[in-house]
Amino acid sequence: MPGNTFGQLFRFTTWGESHGPAIGCVIDGVPPGIALAEPDIQHWLDRRRPGTSRFTTQRQEPDAVKILSGTFEGVTTGTPIGLVIENVDQRSKDYSEIKNTFRPGHADYSYWAKYGVRDYRGGGRASARETAMRVAAGAVARKVLGAALGNAFAVKGALVQVGQHAIDRAKWDWDQIVANPFWSPDKAAAERWADYLDEVRKAGSSVGAIIEVTATGIPAGLGEPVYDKLDADLAKAVMSINAVKGVEIGTGFASAAERGEAAHDAMRMKDGKVQFLSNKAGGTLGGISTGQDIVVRFAVKPTSSVLIPQQGVTTDGREVEVATKGRHDPCVGIRAVPVGEAMVAVVLADHWLRHKAQCG
Amino acid sequence: MPGNTFGQLFRFTTWGESHGPAIGCVIDGVPPGIALAEPDIQHWLDRRRPGTSRFTTQRQEPDAVKILSGTFEGVTTGTPIGLVIENVDQRSKDYSEIKNTFRPGHADYSYWAKYGVRDYRGGGRASARETAMRVAAGAVARKVLGAALGNAFAVKGALVQVGQHAIDRAKWDWDQIVANPFWSPDKAAAERWADYLDEVRKAGSSVGAIIEVTATGIPAGLGEPVYDKLDADLAKAVMSINAVKGVEIGTGFASAAERGEAAHDAMRMKDGKVQFLSNKAGGTLGGISTGQDIVVRFAVKPTSSVLIPQQGVTTDGREVEVATKGRHDPCVGIRAVPVGEAMVAVVLADHWLRHKAQCG
Amino acid sequence: MPGNTFGQLFRFTTWGESHGPAIGCVIDGVPPGIALAEPDIQHWLDRRRPGTSRFTTQRQEPDAVKILSGTFEGVTTGTPIGLVIENVDQRSKDYSEIKNTFRPGHADYSYWAKYGVRDYRGGGRASARETAMRVAAGAVARKVLGAALGNAFAVKGALVQVGQHAIDRAKWDWDQIVANPFWSPDKAAAERWADYLDEVRKAGSSVGAIIEVTATGIPAGLGEPVYDKLDADLAKAVMSINAVKGVEIGTGFASAAERGEAAHDAMRMKDGKVQFLSNKAGGTLGGISTGQDIVVRFAVKPTSSVLIPQQGVTTDGREVEVATKGRHDPCVGIRAVPVGEAMVAVVLADHWLRHKAQCG
Amino acid sequence: MPGNTFGQLFRFTTWGESHGPAIGCVIDGVPPGIALAEPDIQHWLDRRRPGTSRFTTQRQEPDAVKILSGTFEGVTTGTPIGLVIENVDQRSKDYSEIKNTFRPGHADYSYWAKYGVRDYRGGGRASARETAMRVAAGAVARKVLGAALGNAFAVKGALVQVGQHAIDRAKWDWDQIVANPFWSPDKAAAERWADYLDEVRKAGSSVGAIIEVTATGIPAGLGEPVYDKLDADLAKAVMSINAVKGVEIGTGFASAAERGEAAHDAMRMKDGKVQFLSNKAGGTLGGISTGQDIVVRFAVKPTSSVLIPQQGVTTDGREVEVATKGRHDPCVGIRAVPVGEAMVAVVLADHWLRHKAQCG
Repeated sequence: MPGNTFGQLFRFTTWGESHGPAIGCVIDGVPPGIALAEPDIQHWLDRRRPGTSRFTTQRQEPDAVKILSGTFEGVTTGTPIGLVIENVDQRSKDYSEIKNTFRPGHADYSYWAKYGVRDYRGGGRASARETAMRVAAGAVARKVLGAALGNAFAVKGALVQVGQHAIDRAKWDWDQIVANPFWSPDKAAAERWADYLDEVRKAGSSVGAIIEVTATGIPAGLGEPVYDKLDADLAKAVMSINAVKGVEIGTGFASAAERGEAAHDAMRMKDGKVQFLSNKAGGTLGGISTGQDIVVRFAVKPTSSVLIPQQGVTTDGREVEVATKGRHDPCVGIRAVPVGEAMVAVVLADHWLRHKAQCG
Repeated sequence: MPGNTFGQLFRFTTWGESHGPAIGCVIDGVPPGIALAEPDIQHWLDRRRPGTSRFTTQRQEPDAVKILSGTFEGVTTGTPIGLVIENVDQRSKDYSEIKNTFRPGHADYSYWAKYGVRDYRGGGRASARETAMRVAAGAVARKVLGAALGNAFAVKGALVQVGQHAIDRAKWDWDQIVANPFWSPDKAAAERWADYLDEVRKAGSSVGAIIEVTATGIPAGLGEPVYDKLDADLAKAVMSINAVKGVEIGTGFASAAERGEAAHDAMRMKDGKVQFLSNKAGGTLGGISTGQDIVVRFAVKPTSSVLIPQQGVTTDGREVEVATKGRHDPCVGIRAVPVGEAMVAVVLADHWLRHKAQCG
Repeated sequence: MPGNTFGQLFRFTTWGESHGPAIGCVIDGVPPGIALAEPDIQHWLDRRRPGTSRFTTQRQEPDAVKILSGTFEGVTTGTPIGLVIENVDQRSKDYSEIKNTFRPGHADYSYWAKYGVRDYRGGGRASARETAMRVAAGAVARKVLGAALGNAFAVKGALVQVGQHAIDRAKWDWDQIVANPFWSPDKAAAERWADYLDEVRKAGSSVGAIIEVTATGIPAGLGEPVYDKLDADLAKAVMSINAVKGVEIGTGFASAAERGEAAHDAMRMKDGKVQFLSNKAGGTLGGISTGQDIVVRFAVKPTSSVLIPQQGVTTDGREVEVATKGRHDPCVGIRAVPVGEAMVAVVLADHWLRHKAQCG
Repeated sequence: MPGNTFGQLFRFTTWGESHGPAIGCVIDGVPPGIALAEPDIQHWLDRRRPGTSRFTTQRQEPDAVKILSGTFEGVTTGTPIGLVIENVDQRSKDYSEIKNTFRPGHADYSYWAKYGVRDYRGGGRASARETAMRVAAGAVARKVLGAALGNAFAVKGALVQVGQHAIDRAKWDWDQIVANPFWSPDKAAAERWADYLDEVRKAGSSVGAIIEVTATGIPAGLGEPVYDKLDADLAKAVMSINAVKGVEIGTGFASAAERGEAAHDAMRMKDGKVQFLSNKAGGTLGGISTGQDIVVRFAVKPTSSVLIPQQGVTTDGREVEVATKGRHDPCVGIRAVPVGEAMVAVVLADHWLRHKAQCG
C-alpha cells in the first residue's frame, strides 16, 4: 500500500503540501461514543504551532483545525473523522533561487529521483508542516486511550538534549515541561539552551536534539509479536518523523555495554501484583507491554536549512553554493516533542484496538 | 492484522514455536522467473545456525530448509513459496523448574499477560529460533534484489561492539567478516572479544552488542513517504528482532550533537551524476534512498538467560531466585548479524516492489 | 483495518456524511506525471449528479470537486490527492418524524446496532451521497489506466433492466448510452422505461434494476490469485455499492445450467495471437484477466424510501407505520451506472499497479 | 499485498500446488484459549475430500491435516497456527499431452500470460486442491465463532440447483443435507440429480450448479462500511472460489424486478426485541448484519475438464482439439458446498474480530 497511511485499526491517512491550499487527515476506526470536539485537537496543535518563541521557525500559521465528519452531537459515531487545516502563511514567496537547486540534507533530491516530478515549493510533503496532522491524529488517539484506560493514562514528551547539552536527569521535573519554551524537564538546562540557541541562530546555524517520550497507565499485553511488536511499531512511528535518525527503547544503545545479570528488571510481588524493581526494558518484553511506563527516545539531526552556504547541485547538473535565506529553525527538536508524543499515542491506540480484537 | 507477517508486497508470514515439531514461512509476492533452490537459502541459514562456535548456544539444529511450493524447474513461479524446517533438538527437557517461573528479561511474563495462556516450553514464538525464518526470507529477498539490481547489490553485516569493546573503524576490513566467529571487520577486535567472551561465558554472564548492516547497490528512489519511509521500515524491521533495544541510520544518535553546516552530505557532480561527498545520512533523505549505501546500526541487550541467580516470580505469586541451567548464549549479538542482514534485505525487496508499482 | 478505504496500491479513503458540511477523499498511490485537473473528475461527477432528470432524486447538489493536494502544474506528483466536495443542499430539514424511527430496508437500524450511536440525519455514511467520492476516485483511476493502456482502454456502463423490463441485447448500441436519461443501450427500452418509471414515481413506489459494466483494452495478466482474484475484487467492489444485492461475471448465474462442452470460450489463433471465439468467461480465467473484455453485471434492490407506508419500529420499541415524505428516487439503478463504472475502474487501476509490482 | 492471504484480523495465508509435495496454511489472529485439535479440522476436510462418491473426482487424497504450531495442551495460544496436508495422489502422471496445450476454460493460459512461467502439472495453484486449505481455515473460523457466539451459531450449505434442475424450496429439510451425496436439502431432487449426473458423467460432460449457504446465530453489527461491508466481503470470499461466476445475498438478482413496498423486511417488536417479518435482505442492511440469518447464494460454471474435445491452442501457437482423459468431476458444485461454507465462516470470524476491535 502507499505510504501516507499509519496504523492498522486506529488508522489515519494524511494529505497536503506545505504550500498548497490546505492539509488534511482522515482517521478511521475510532470507537463510537467518545466525546470529541475541535478544542480537544486544537489544544495539542497549539503546542506544535510554529512561531510561538524565537527558537522556532517564524512561519505564522494559526493551524485552526476543522472536524468535517465522524462526530455528531459532540461524540464520535464510528465513521471516519475528516480533519482539515487551511494553510494561511504559504507566502507567495520567490522560489527562483531554489527552484532548480538541490540543497544538502533536503529531501527534494530523493523525491525528484523517486517521482521524476519536481514540486520546488518549500518542501511539499517532506515539510515539517505535515507533522501538524500527526499531532491532530495523536490528539484523537489520546481521547481513545483516555476513554479506555482512564486517568492513569498519559503521554508526555521532553527535550533531553540540545546539541551537546544534555539535561541532568537527577533534576527531572515534569512540571517544568510547560514552563519553558523547550519542553525541558530540567530548569537549568532550559536556561543554558536559551543562550546556546541564540548563539546558534545568530550564527545562521542549527543543532540536533534528543527527545524522550513516556507513556504511563498502559496495561500489560499490548503488542503483536513477532513483527508488529510494540517497540517495533514505536520505532517505525518515531523514525518516520522528519529529521529523526535514531530511536531507542528503555536502556537502548547503552544496553550493549551491560552484563546480563544487571541488564534486566528484577521482579517482586507487591500487593499481590507483579512489580518490576527498575525499568531498563522501557516497558516492553518480547515486544509486548509489561504494564510499566513505555519509554522511547529519539534523535533528530540539525535542520538542513542554514544560512551558511552549502555545496549543492542544480537540476541541470551545475555545482553551486547555496544558503537558506529568511526564516529558519535553529533546532527542530523543540517542535519534535509534541510530534513524538503524538506518534507514541497513535501507536498505543492502534495496539489497544488490535489487542482488544484478538484477546479482548 | 495480526503480527506474524512482514512486508507489503514482498510479504512473508512465519509460524512455529521453538519446541514444536517444525517452524515455517510463506513468502508471497516473489516475482516469477527467479532462479531459486534450497541451497540458496541454506547458505544463509548456515550462518545463523547455533552451535557453530563456543560463543553461541550449543543447541544443535541442522536447520535444513525444504521448499514445498512456489518453484518449478528451479525458478520461482510467482505463487507463494512455502518453507519448512523441522525442529530436531527440541530436547524432551525437564521444564519443571521454569514451568511456573517468570524470569527477568524474558518474554514469558508479557505473553502470559497478553494471551492468558502459558506455553512454558523454551520461549515459544519469543525464542530466537524464530529468527531462522527471517534469515530464510532474507535469502529469498536477496535473490529478488540480485535479479533486479545486479552484482552491485549486496547486504553485509558486521559486529561493531561487544559489551564495552568497540571495533576500531579505521581498521574496517570486509574480508575479515567471515574470517572470525564474530563477523568482526576488525581482526584485532575479534581476538579481544574471544578472550572477553570466554570470561563472560565462564562467569555465567552475558553481554550486549552493536551490529551494523550496510546495503550497497541500492538505487535512489526507494521508500514511501511519509509513514512508510525507508528508514522507518528499516527501524521497525530491526527493532522487531529479539533483544534489540535501539536502531539508528547513518550518523544516528550522534547527529544530535552536530551543527547544521556539518551534519549533511555535500553534493557535487561526477561524470554527469550527483555525488555525495560523505554519507552521514546513511543513504536516505526524507525517507527515500539517495543511491548511497544504506547504513543501519542496532543494539542488542545481553541475553536474559544467565547462570547467575535473578529475582523472579512464579505464576502463583511467589518470589523466587532463578538461574538458567545448561546451554546459554553469552552474546546474542553474534547470531544477530545474519538476522539483521536478512531484515534489511526484506525491507529493501519490499520497497523495491512498492517503488516499481507506483513509479516503475 | 477499518472499512472506509478501498484498494491496495491504488488506494482511496473516503469520509463525510450526507448532512455534514462536506465529503472528501484521499487517493494514494497514483503514479506521478499523469495529467490531472478538476474537470477530469468533474466530468464523471456530473454523470452521477442528482436532479438531472425527473427519474432521479431532486436533491440539488452541484458536486463541485476541489483538488487540494497531490498535483503540481497540472500533473500528479505521486503524493496523496486530497479531494473535497461541499454539501450544499443539506436542507435544514425537519427530522422530527424519522428521528426515532427505523424504516424497513434502511441501514439506520444496523448502524445503530453496531455503533450504539444514532445520527438520524438522512442516512449519514449509508447515504448514496457517499458514492460521489467513488465516482471521483474512479475518474482518477481512469486517468491512471488511460496513461498506461492508451486509447483502447475504456470502462462503460449500461442499464440493462429496470423492474421486470430488460433490454433487447440484440439492439445494444453503445452510442445510445448518453442519448437517454437511463444509460440504456437500447433506445426502445429507454422509451418504455420512461413511461414505466413515471408510473412508479407517481405511485410513490420504486423498483430495482440491473447494470452491466464492460471494460475494454485490459491486458491479460491482471488479478492476484487465489484470494484477490480480479473477479473476486470486482465482486467486492460492486457489492459494496449501496443497494446492490447480486453480482456476476460473464455468463454468471446462467452458467449453472450449462454443459461443460458449451460453457467455455474456444481458443484459436489469429495473426499470431490467441483469440477467444466467445466471452462467456467475462474476461477472466482463474481470476486473472485474459485480454478479453471484462464484463460485470449487478442488481440493485428498489429504493427503500417509498411514499407507501411500511411497518417500522421506533428506537424506544414502538411499532409504527412509516412513509417517506418529499423527494425520493424511483430507481437508484440509474445513478448506480456511473458508480458501477467507477468501482470497476478503481479495481482495474489497483490490479494494474499490483501486477506491475510483481510481474512488471 | 500479494493475493494468497484472506482476511484482516482472522487472517490466513495458503501455499502449495496440486502436484507439489504438500499444501499448507498459516492462520494468524486466532484468539487464545480456544479448544482446537486436528479432528476439529479433519471433520470438515472429510466433507470436501474427493473420491467419496461416483459424482466427484476419483483422485484419492486422505487429506490428513497436521497442526504444527499455535496450540498447546489442546488450546490455541494466540500464535500463528501452521497447518500442512501432504499430497499423496500426485500421480507421476504423463503430462506430455497437455504440457504445451492451453485448454478452454482452464486457468493455465491466464497464469502463463501473467507470470510468464508455465507449471503444466495439473492446475498448480488454480487447482481445486487449493480449496482444502480454505476448508481447514473455515474449520478454525467455526471454532472461533462457536466460542464467541455459542450454540446458536452455525454455517450450513446446500446444493440448490444442478444444471437446470433446481430443488423445490418448499421441501427444504436441513436433515437431508448429510443424507445424500449432494448436500441437497430436497430428497427428491437428490434422487433426480443422481440419474442426471450419471448421464452427464457417461457423456464425458459436466454441468454447473448453485449453492446456498446460511449462517445462523450471527449478532447484529458485523460489517465495516462502506467498503468492507459484510456482504461485500462475502461476495469477494465466495467469488474467489474456483469456477464461481456469480454471487447474491438474500433476494439477490430477483430484487431487480421487485417494487419498493414489497422488497424490504417489515419490522415489528417481539418480546421487547426488533423482529423482521421476512428475510429478503439476507441478513444485512447497509452492509452490516441485522441479527437475521445471513443467506449467500453462488453459481459455479461446469468443470472445464470434459472428455469431449474442445478447441484449444498450444504454447507455440498451434490450434488443436483437446479432451481431458482420465478422472474428471461431472459437477464441481458438490464439493463447492463445504468450500462455500468455509468461506462464509472465515468472513464472519474476521468481521467478528473487527467489530470487537472498534465497538467491543
